[in-house]
Amino acid sequence: MTRWLRTFGGGASEGSAKMRDLLGGKGANLAEMANLGFPVPPGFTVTTEVCSAYFANGRNFPETLAGQMEAGMRHIEGITGARFGNKVNPLLVSVRSGSRASMPGMMDTVLNLGLNDETAAGLAERTGDARFAYDSYRRFIQMYGDVVLGVNHQEFEDLLERTKHELNIDLDTDVSAKNWQGLIEEYKVLVNKRLDAPFPQDPVEQLWGAVSAVFDSWMNHRAVTYRMLYDIPESWGTAVNIQAMVFGNMGADCATGVAFTRDPSSGDKRLYGEYLINAQGEDVVAGIRTPQPLNTDSYNNSGAPVLASTMPKIYIELQDVADQLEAHYGDMQDIEFTVQQGKLWMLQTRAGKRTAAAALKIAVDLVTEGVLDKESAVTRVEAESLEQLLHPRLDPDAPRNVIARGLPASPGAAVGKAVFSSDRAEDLAAKGEAVILVRPETSPEDIHGMHAARAILTSRGGMTSHAAVVARGMGRPCITGTMEIRIDAAAKTFATNTETIREGDLITVDGTLGEVLKGEIPTIEPELSGAFETLMGWADEIRTLGVRANAETPHDAATARKFGAEGIGLCRTEHMFFDAERIISMREMILAEDSVGRQVALAKLLPMQRQDFVELFTIMAGLPVTIRLLDPPLHEFLPHGESEMREVAEATALPFQEVRARVEQLRENNPMLGHRGCRLGISHPEIYEMQARAIFEAILDVAEVGVAKTAVLEIMIPLVLGSPEIKILRKLIEDVADEIESVRGTLPPYIVGTMIELPRAALRADDIAEAADFFSFGTNDLTQTSLGISRDDAASFMDSYVRQGLFERDPFASLDIGGVGELVETACKRGRRQNSDLKLGICGEHGGDPASIRFFHQCGLNYVSCSPYRVPIARLAAAQAQIGRD
Amino acid sequence: MTRWLRTFGGGASEGSAKMRDLLGGKGANLAEMANLGFPVPPGFTVTTEVCSAYFANGRNFPETLAGQMEAGMRHIEGITGARFGNKVNPLLVSVRSGSRASMPGMMDTVLNLGLNDETAAGLAERTGDARFAYDSYRRFIQMYGDVVLGVNHQEFEDLLERTKHELNIDLDTDVSAKNWQGLIEEYKVLVNKRLDAPFPQDPVEQLWGAVSAVFDSWMNHRAVTYRMLYDIPESWGTAVNIQAMVFGNMGADCATGVAFTRDPSSGDKRLYGEYLINAQGEDVVAGIRTPQPLNTDSYNNSGAPVLASTMPKIYIELQDVADQLEAHYGDMQDIEFTVQQGKLWMLQTRAGKRTAAAALKIAVDLVTEGVLDKESAVTRVEAESLEQLLHPRLDPDAPRNVIARGLPASPGAAVGKAVFSSDRAEDLAAKGEAVILVRPETSPEDIHGMHAARAILTSRGGMTSHAAVVARGMGRPCITGTMEIRIDAAAKTFATNTETIREGDLITVDGTLGEVLKGEIPTIEPELSGAFETLMGWADEIRTLGVRANAETPHDAATARKFGAEGIGLCRTEHMFFDAERIISMREMILAEDSVGRQVALAKLLPMQRQDFVELFTIMAGLPVTIRLLDPPLHEFLPHGESEMREVAEATALPFQEVRARVEQLRENNPMLGHRGCRLGISHPEIYEMQARAIFEAILDVAEVGVAKTAVLEIMIPLVLGSPEIKILRKLIEDVADEIESVRGTLPPYIVGTMIELPRAALRADDIAEAADFFSFGTNDLTQTSLGISRDDAASFMDSYVRQGLFERDPFASLDIGGVGELVETACKRGRRQNSDLKLGICGEHGGDPASIRFFHQCGLNYVSCSPYRVPIARLAAAQAQIGRD
Repeated sequence: MTRWLRTFGGGASEGSAKMRDLLGGKGANLAEMANLGFPVPPGFTVTTEVCSAYFANGRNFPETLAGQMEAGMRHIEGITGARFGNKVNPLLVSVRSGSRASMPGMMDTVLNLGLNDETAAGLAERTGDARFAYDSYRRFIQMYGDVVLGVNHQEFEDLLERTKHELNIDLDTDVSAKNWQGLIEEYKVLVNKRLDAPFPQDPVEQLWGAVSAVFDSWMNHRAVTYRMLYDIPESWGTAVNIQAMVFGNMGADCATGVAFTRDPSSGDKRLYGEYLINAQGEDVVAGIRTPQPLNTDSYNNSGAPVLASTMPKIYIELQDVADQLEAHYGDMQDIEFTVQQGKLWMLQTRAGKRTAAAALKIAVDLVTEGVLDKESAVTRVEAESLEQLLHPRLDPDAPRNVIARGLPASPGAAVGKAVFSSDRAEDLAAKGEAVILVRPETSPEDIHGMHAARAILTSRGGMTSHAAVVARGMGRPCITGTMEIRIDAAAKTFATNTETIREGDLITVDGTLGEVLKGEIPTIEPELSGAFETLMGWADEIRTLGVRANAETPHDAATARKFGAEGIGLCRTEHMFFDAERIISMREMILAEDSVGRQVALAKLLPMQRQDFVELFTIMAGLPVTIRLLDPPLHEFLPHGESEMREVAEATALPFQEVRARVEQLRENNPMLGHRGCRLGISHPEIYEMQARAIFEAILDVAEVGVAKTAVLEIMIPLVLGSPEIKILRKLIEDVADEIESVRGTLPPYIVGTMIELPRAALRADDIAEAADFFSFGTNDLTQTSLGISRDDAASFMDSYVRQGLFERDPFASLDIGGVGELVETACKRGRRQNSDLKLGICGEHGGDPASIRFFHQCGLNYVSCSPYRVPIARLAAAQAQIGRD
Repeated sequence: MTRWLRTFGGGASEGSAKMRDLLGGKGANLAEMANLGFPVPPGFTVTTEVCSAYFANGRNFPETLAGQMEAGMRHIEGITGARFGNKVNPLLVSVRSGSRASMPGMMDTVLNLGLNDETAAGLAERTGDARFAYDSYRRFIQMYGDVVLGVNHQEFEDLLERTKHELNIDLDTDVSAKNWQGLIEEYKVLVNKRLDAPFPQDPVEQLWGAVSAVFDSWMNHRAVTYRMLYDIPESWGTAVNIQAMVFGNMGADCATGVAFTRDPSSGDKRLYGEYLINAQGEDVVAGIRTPQPLNTDSYNNSGAPVLASTMPKIYIELQDVADQLEAHYGDMQDIEFTVQQGKLWMLQTRAGKRTAAAALKIAVDLVTEGVLDKESAVTRVEAESLEQLLHPRLDPDAPRNVIARGLPASPGAAVGKAVFSSDRAEDLAAKGEAVILVRPETSPEDIHGMHAARAILTSRGGMTSHAAVVARGMGRPCITGTMEIRIDAAAKTFATNTETIREGDLITVDGTLGEVLKGEIPTIEPELSGAFETLMGWADEIRTLGVRANAETPHDAATARKFGAEGIGLCRTEHMFFDAERIISMREMILAEDSVGRQVALAKLLPMQRQDFVELFTIMAGLPVTIRLLDPPLHEFLPHGESEMREVAEATALPFQEVRARVEQLRENNPMLGHRGCRLGISHPEIYEMQARAIFEAILDVAEVGVAKTAVLEIMIPLVLGSPEIKILRKLIEDVADEIESVRGTLPPYIVGTMIELPRAALRADDIAEAADFFSFGTNDLTQTSLGISRDDAASFMDSYVRQGLFERDPFASLDIGGVGELVETACKRGRRQNSDLKLGICGEHGGDPASIRFFHQCGLNYVSCSPYRVPIARLAAAQAQIGRD
């Protein structure tokens, strides 16, 4: 016969922490604690197999469960001495869900089960505390009525409020036993009215009702959505824990509390937590009374007495249990405990949530303490969480006046004056003002404004829109897709439903949460601890996947090195053309009608571009630098609007009509799919020739001024469709190299490769690999084309897609492994089959996403490249991928 | 020892027509004719293997070739009695290329080889015709000098012109022997000056020079480009034919001519061709003298005597040879012949080029005559060529004043007044004027103008731009991407480099050639012959691939049926919303801020859309109709420019500011990759609900008015990424159906399927097939996304890509089999593996392209769907694909 449940308590258990799949997290840990001899109220866990059977059988329980449940109750009765439904010494139990994965607050719980009119009276008599007994009974009716019987929670609350109002009482603890009894009668009338049946008095009926309700809650809307979002299979099911109640609210020798075995904010090794005398667990959370700290080590602004002084023996016992649990589990624990009449009971233990800073310190300390090895320590810090450490953040204690919400596109926080154009941002920043750039969206023309601004706020665009990508690259906080604001750039205002913000008004941007706040909220600067350096060092020892950064400015390149990048995986040469001085020559080049005109303008750009490379190669001495030749559509560089066109006409000495006509001629309906990338190199070879020349001349210049180590040149051709383009352009580059060598002598070795960013290129990877030394997956564009989604336009529907579960996560943030991933894998295989020396990397936004990094590691990529601020995340995620694989 | 050559002539050959790969087309057919006993001047063919060996070995010949060449020359000498280099009876030979595939004019030829100062004198003496001998010698120096020695052709021409000018002579035939001798001396001086060496007098040296030159021409720029364009492998190589010269220019009993065994324009069975008395072959082509017809059956505007009367015996012999050759090859032949001193010589035979009309008639007649079976006949007509028959075309004899060239986007020709807006086009057309719509590009807002116009001309866009696709669908001639014209819509003019065309000026559009002509050129209406119907009937018997049409208007649907479509494969419902009356409600719907507002507007659209379907289902009674739910981005329906927005504001009673703001809000950077397709259905379900309702109500309405056969409903959901979208939207459709059934009774059966038009969808085809009854490949969008090319923006670089051989053909015209094709194949396999009943079709532009149809047939698709005017092409191509496969 299948064993449908496992008992625990009384110093032994039928289960253990290893049986998480069968018993859920809570049940497994209760069993483990009981096995370890800790004081756990006895109980049993109805397994997840019952859940599966229940749903497979049209929400009916297996026949043999009833007998086993009876035996389980007898187990509890045997240890506690109390009896279920007995009015002299009634056994009360809690009924709680507990699934394999933590799903906080998603499913239901019933406490104080077993109370009815008779057992409540018996409890009052036995404890000599009628107030306690009837308070427990009314709590039970309220909770059971809501969870099991489906009576609206608010109706109970309304009756409670009315009673307290009539009695002129503020706190529940001031309500007398008699008054509770009166409320209980009102509750029962309410239930009868709503259900046409009395509140169930039979404890066994209550028990089955509660167990059914907990299982049913596995399928409630919240739980289904949560599972969809976190990819938890429905088939896992939940377990149900039935456990003897213990009471922290039976008098002054009772208490209830939560404790972390270390400080979850700082990671410091000290017991950290809160408790309340004479209270039930939910009171600590509810915030009606202010909980007191456990000890004087903890932050204590109430001056209330600490557990260490009020219950010194309990405190010592708790500290002892905490130490043992932490040593046993090898991780910081989050503990729930109750003190009933001077006896400590343990109700829960689990790995405690912590800040990134704490996670780092705890992981490193546990290694120092000999509890963990380095590999395990590296897995203990969520890579993504490092983001918190790398950007300034808002003081969490400051009051927040949120006026709009958008997408948390780039984390961190900043305060500044709202400005509505990039030029204005630059002007004010030059005067030392902190500004926030507010735009419907940004384009490469806004780079200077974004650089000048402390943060960027856009009403359009998604998590990987231009604004988002550039902001993350620059480490600027950014909120995109703030659909609820209406920007009137001409009037220099933006409006929410309630507020209008004018140019110069102070706002705060919380890029971590995607919140726009009115006024100035104080921020906190990041500090990188010694633990950070230590753990990252371990990660670097473990990982085999290289980590580079996407960077083109000296500042970004230096930041990237500081954060441990092993080279540049993507230098976007077009970003070098937006400088005010250069854009003129760039525009002159674009407006030229023919190759000769273009060459004249390119000759002016050559020394500037060469100088950029000189700086970059100097900073990245000895490391690889992947330089992507011009990629975006030319019209991105052109002026928009008549006044800008007039400026350009003046600067280039062209007739205004001609400028306008040429701008119109270059306009594209879908520039993402237009005349860009290597298509420019094919149609206007002089552009790539200039760039190749600038690269080669720069590398020789750097060597001549005596920089000891040479950067390793990797020249990258974007947007190829197949091998012909790379063959033609490789030849062009080699011809330039030959010419320069003939004049200036031997060049250092360089390699030529390509972006794989079109589905066709992924499929033709074998052909392409014939002519390419490396592939770099441009997963941003590959996602755009594979999914047919423009990242700049996705905001209008991506949110509803993610919400309806059509995507687990935004595919621009985390690689769509089932679709785009197949193309990446195919290209890796076909490319390496053709050319076993092929170097493989990825330079899309996904290069900084841990889940994507795991996939790239599995595909056998040599490196990932991401924005400088995500380099530490990538280093850690790469190490974790390595560990996960071995 | 490898046999490097094969001899022919004297009633026998070492080769035959089957050895085309080794001997090339010309050599194989010469061998075949000699085998058949026809009078072929003797010669030999140096095989394509020599070509391969020559290039593999650094342009050196195999050592053993020299001996075999000598033997080959001896073979010719044996039959002719003449001797190579002998001054008494000199043998002259021609040296011609001849590859496996016809590459007309791409490679080089040398005639009259073997002449030098001595043999020329000998020839003069032997023939008694010094003028002939020295004319031949100067021709040889000129040709050899150009082809083998690399002296500029024009320099010889200049000397010839000067001589004729000095002699005051117009025709070459009037130049005397003495004058030719003088010119020959000048030629020799020229050669000596250019080469620093005399013109080679040794015939053997001449021969090797010519053979090398012909092989070298396999790698000349023209030939390389041609091979790239027509996908002819370089490895095939060319053969070289060395053959005894015969002379049609030795007197009045000599002639040269070309003959088709049937009329290549009409296909009528009669010898058709031209000849010249006392001339060499090149004279017929050169057009200096006007050739004479072979017989009185042929069109004869010169009144010159026909061969049948001037050389009656030769004519009868020629007719006999022609009949035998046609019977032997089973196809109409294109023959070259020469008459030397009363004797007929056959110099070439090959399948003759013909018009589509002739191809049809000849194929059908050959079956009637018992020469061919039906299957072979079906393969004899190039499917693509039917296009010529289906659209009006320009009178080929009219003079043409071409002012600009663009892409031949939709064939046929039309004359009309240039107009520069769709409204203007409609106004003038309503007054009975023929107009040509000239726009930078078109959008769905131009549909009414395109319908009103006789043809469309755009300066932007490619072969599958909006203008091109819609024009082909409507059967309107169209030229797109006419980059060399500058349109000033405000001024209502367009300018070329030389001309300015104003509104109202008459222009002619030749959509077949992509030429814009000034003024009116007369056009010819198409006529579908009985042969057309007969051959299409055979094609229908053979093919297994279904052919449907893309159509939504009653007119298009009726046209489609007329051309033999077996249903509608794509009804684009959005095309139904552009009517002036409807666009208002459509705009109201789009401008609505919420679902309720949208529903109000949709309620107005419902009866209109329903009525459209009623008409369509009535026309397509009994046939499948695939209806695609709304696909394009909503902003396509919105007004552009302030004045249009003001109109809309008035019509919808919305404030102008709000209209402008909403238009701005809906604007997308890359609408192709934006909020469109099923994304609209997911975010605005009420739109698809209305459409489903209109479809189901219409099908019941049609049944109620007594249309006997019910159209077979196939509802198609566009732009899905994976299975969740189709599951959600299928449910939505089924819910509407259930509701209608509950009110009006049982609906006829319907199926729900999806477009596969995104790479991800192709990869996830297995998941999608779980929820879809059919796939229809949207290869336009699949090409756009797989290749990352917007068809609207491709004109600026696609041309240079095709020209540089980066694409064999425009991938929007002919499927990119190596890239997009793999996705189609993968989706077919995965889809059918999941759902063996899955119906597969294609509704992109490629559904009308023969090469693509062959691929789709191989993939196992059930049908292709194309524009109505391409339905016959698809039917024929489908039959040819079937034959090719079996």
